[in-house]
Amino acid sequence: MPSLDKSLVAGLPLFAGLPPDDLDHILREAQSIRYPKGTAVFQQDEEAHSFFVLLHGHLRVVKVTPDGQQVVVRFITPGEMFGIAIAMGRPRYPATALAIVDSIALVWPSAAWPRLVAKHPSLAVNTLQTVGNRLQDAHTRVVEISTEQVEKRVAHALLRLAHQAGRKGEDGVQIDFPISRQDVAEMTGTTLHTVSRILSSWEERGLVESGRQRITIRDPHKLFLLAEDLPR
Amino acid sequence: MPSLDKSLVAGLPLFAGLPPDDLDHILREAQSIRYPKGTAVFQQDEEAHSFFVLLHGHLRVVKVTPDGQQVVVRFITPGEMFGIAIAMGRPRYPATALAIVDSIALVWPSAAWPRLVAKHPSLAVNTLQTVGNRLQDAHTRVVEISTEQVEKRVAHALLRLAHQAGRKGEDGVQIDFPISRQDVAEMTGTTLHTVSRILSSWEERGLVESGRQRITIRDPHKLFLLAEDLPR
Repeated sequence: MPSLDKSLVAGLPLFAGLPPDDLDHILREAQSIRYPKGTAVFQQDEEAHSFFVLLHGHLRVVKVTPDGQQVVVRFITPGEMFGIAIAMGRPRYPATALAIVDSIALVWPSAAWPRLVAKHPSLAVNTLQTVGNRLQDAHTRVVEISTEQVEKRVAHALLRLAHQAGRKGEDGVQIDFPISRQDVAEMTGTTLHTVSRILSSWEERGLVESGRQRITIRDPHKLFLLAEDLPR
Repeated sequence: MPSLDKSLVAGLPLFAGLPPDDLDHILREAQSIRYPKGTAVFQQDEEAHSFFVLLHGHLRVVKVTPDGQQVVVRFITPGEMFGIAIAMGRPRYPATALAIVDSIALVWPSAAWPRLVAKHPSLAVNTLQTVGNRLQDAHTRVVEISTEQVEKRVAHALLRLAHQAGRKGEDGVQIDFPISRQDVAEMTGTTLHTVSRILSSWEERGLVESGRQRITIRDPHKLFLLAEDLPR
């Protein structure tokens, strides 16, 4: 890899505990690839040829059902691994990853995974923590969709996005990538119509502000109280 | 560990690829504990003191919300790891594991995990596959609850249970552990009333048979067609 500044990646969770020489060895097998806004890094059901670490930009990961309905699995922010089907023993990608802004990723061929892990076992240990966090997130979503009214689900989804990719500004915490009301609907198992109704009512109450592809949480504390059903 | 027959565990996914001497070393740190029907192996939010492999019996893993609603996370069948919070870097158990029949598990102190993994990296690699499978299951559930009508969700849940723990008999595939209609409701994000209505209608059509704590799929093929929305 020619010009990547190693300090950009040495601090990533995947590489925790690795000596600099080992990191060199691992990075030597990667290339960095640019994915312009709107392109797919990989498609659902495509052969899992590579695994990735996002260096710059944001991705939306979506699953499409046989009858064409979409569910947003997660958003990927810089520093995260993704497309790690090979690490979980799966031959194909279970979802599609789309660049929602111009993005850059480190890309390894899947064939390198068994070799790299045999040589650097902490890669497997670190990946296990990432996958474990995602498993907890997924179970939290199952519990929310199963037991919560839609308004609370939307509040929880926005708070998680703010936690994952919030940028504090003068007028609140803005989610640091383009996100639409349709995305929020596909994260919370509801319809665009319902999300629009909820966000409009929250805007009137000064909780959030949303525009095309943009959501700002103006009053995170009040949104938290609402999500947790606490008295305001 | 005194009297455990090593052949019982040598074939488990967790121990795949381990030489017999390494397996001995790993098993030496475990004890086998019996959990009578109805007891908890661990409780949600309890400190994650141990990790486990189920040798015999069946467990139900449930998450309880702050307002007391329950969601069934999964059933554990013999040979599976569970309670592996430590492997995912979590200090507490995210759910409660209950023995639904008399059960026996191998139990390791969590403190042994980093040491065992450092010495036997394939433990981490194998665990990653287990956690990866659970992540896919959880996403499948998110997609189903978000996009499918309740009847299809219940059909998918029963087919998965039959796949995980089905025992073929003369009158169909019986789910090989006690399972109630309430459990099915807590697996599919619906109410006991709805599950009862669906199962009664399926019984009339000869698809399933269910009694107290018992479900038999009489016609798995028809149930599959119904789950997948294919013409019958």
